Amino acid sequence: MKIRIGVAGYGNIGKGVEKAVLQSPDMEFAAVFTRRDPQNVKISAPGVPVYALDEAECMTGDIDVMILCGGSATDLPEQGPRLAALFNTVDSFDTHAKIPEYFDKVNKAAIGAGTTAVISAGWDPGLFSMMRMLSGAVLPNGSDYTFWGPGVSQGHSDAIRRVAGVKNAVQYTMPVEAAINEVRSGSAPSLTSRQKHTRECYVVPKDGADLAEIERGIKNMPNYFAEYDTTVRFITEDEFLKSHTKMPHGGFVLRSGSTGGSKHVVEFSLKLDSNPEFTGAVLAAYARAAERMDREGLRGAKTVFDVPIAYLSAKDGETLRREML
Amino acid sequence: MKIRIGVAGYGNIGKGVEKAVLQSPDMEFAAVFTRRDPQNVKISAPGVPVYALDEAECMTGDIDVMILCGGSATDLPEQGPRLAALFNTVDSFDTHAKIPEYFDKVNKAAIGAGTTAVISAGWDPGLFSMMRMLSGAVLPNGSDYTFWGPGVSQGHSDAIRRVAGVKNAVQYTMPVEAAINEVRSGSAPSLTSRQKHTRECYVVPKDGADLAEIERGIKNMPNYFAEYDTTVRFITEDEFLKSHTKMPHGGFVLRSGSTGGSKHVVEFSLKLDSNPEFTGAVLAAYARAAERMDREGLRGAKTVFDVPIAYLSAKDGETLRREML
Repeated sequence: MKIRIGVAGYGNIGKGVEKAVLQSPDMEFAAVFTRRDPQNVKISAPGVPVYALDEAECMTGDIDVMILCGGSATDLPEQGPRLAALFNTVDSFDTHAKIPEYFDKVNKAAIGAGTTAVISAGWDPGLFSMMRMLSGAVLPNGSDYTFWGPGVSQGHSDAIRRVAGVKNAVQYTMPVEAAINEVRSGSAPSLTSRQKHTRECYVVPKDGADLAEIERGIKNMPNYFAEYDTTVRFITEDEFLKSHTKMPHGGFVLRSGSTGGSKHVVEFSLKLDSNPEFTGAVLAAYARAAERMDREGLRGAKTVFDVPIAYLSAKDGETLRREML
Repeated sequence: MKIRIGVAGYGNIGKGVEKAVLQSPDMEFAAVFTRRDPQNVKISAPGVPVYALDEAECMTGDIDVMILCGGSATDLPEQGPRLAALFNTVDSFDTHAKIPEYFDKVNKAAIGAGTTAVISAGWDPGLFSMMRMLSGAVLPNGSDYTFWGPGVSQGHSDAIRRVAGVKNAVQYTMPVEAAINEVRSGSAPSLTSRQKHTRECYVVPKDGADLAEIERGIKNMPNYFAEYDTTVRFITEDEFLKSHTKMPHGGFVLRSGSTGGSKHVVEFSLKLDSNPEFTGAVLAAYARAAERMDREGLRGAKTVFDVPIAYLSAKDGETLRREML
């Protein structure tokens, strides 16, 4: 019996989940739920029905796990608790500062309804969080470092697009290789934001825009760019469409720690051609875990810290021990 | 109430566990158990009693978790099931091919006694296994690569010491950087043993030994060296003692996989100044997990695949979500 996966929100991450589910023989891509008019949503996979999100409550018997693919700013704070009261859910809620509050709300809904809800299960938060936690538990005496990129930051790209005279833009967050190497050496340096990342902006200006003014506007923007070494390059719309529409991302989590007199460095890194496709793949694996936890009566909100990784695999424990341990 | 840790076997790994436990405010280094005469075992930590291993069965009320630090070849196959029938246990059993059989025996003993026994919890098997499993579950369409080193292989060092004319020796397993970079590029190459690792031997010859004969004997040794590019360097006893008595190790686990049309590379690596100290630190963290699983009634043999990583930390769930997610 396949795990019937519903997807709430068919944007970049929803499409990433679709690809991951179609690669998983133990899962069925059962339905898409959307806030848009279902008539206007074209699904890549053949024969998959599209419903209005408001119809979801009539379909609790048809979906084993609902994967929530909306945004963390406004969609998930509302949809997370609401859908966890109807289905087992998985999401990639990524507003780090609001995770405790979100966890409590989803947990209350899931406990009340007897469902299992995995929150914040992408790669950061998600796999990167696991690495920080795991390496910190093994090496309590040490320091953590997270570097992001090379990769596209949607938030920073959006910020550039709000600058007067900008037609289109993309921002790449770049980790500073020299800083990573310093951490790798075991020297446990203190690093400022500026020392860890640079920001590269590719900007398509509007006709007749003042380029120097745009560059100043970007580089001096507080919180987004002023604290970093930022480069701005102006490109044509053609070049933008040809070279800058992919969504690569990734990064590095390191822990440098000591035991007795010895130093150790633990490093985890991701190099992702497509951030939403990889995030979708992580969400699909946690959907498998959510279904299993639900079957075992493990209810309420869970994070990547709470889920035994065996639950992410379609293989049974004996096979995992024989092939993977 | 601190977790009372017993250590069975006070060799390199037992001493590594000792250092980790002394760094952990929630643990007490309660006792050492040895097959040697307890009178002859000097413990670094002050005031820690030493008992004969055969006395352990009288002390089930004094130890919360026994960490088994004997060897995988002969000690653990016997001690693992025997001690799991008396205590919650953690070990780093590392004979990969025999893990299923070992798991079954320890599981039977632990289920029968109502204890919790975490097996094969070092870094390989252990953390490396987790990375292979986790990345494989997220990227089912892909290839795994494990590279070991730079680091000392005890097995290969022992093999050299059995060659006629050799007084002392150490063997470093070296990962081939070019091969790692090929995997990092996402090209998913097929790699032979020779392409992945080289072997560097530092040998102290006996007086008057035939050096060419020693070198031939090492390089042609089947299973250990014949399948690899091996270099042999002759050094003095002084140089050996000065530069080659540490036990550094580490390695790289990579998975190269695809989702839809996009490629992704997941990489985990360890750079360890002291293999036994780091292994000891992992074992101590899993001892914390074993005690908690026992309290929660999760009995029987467990592996790193079965243990939620939150259980490795002394911090509670709320703190972990707030600080680490």
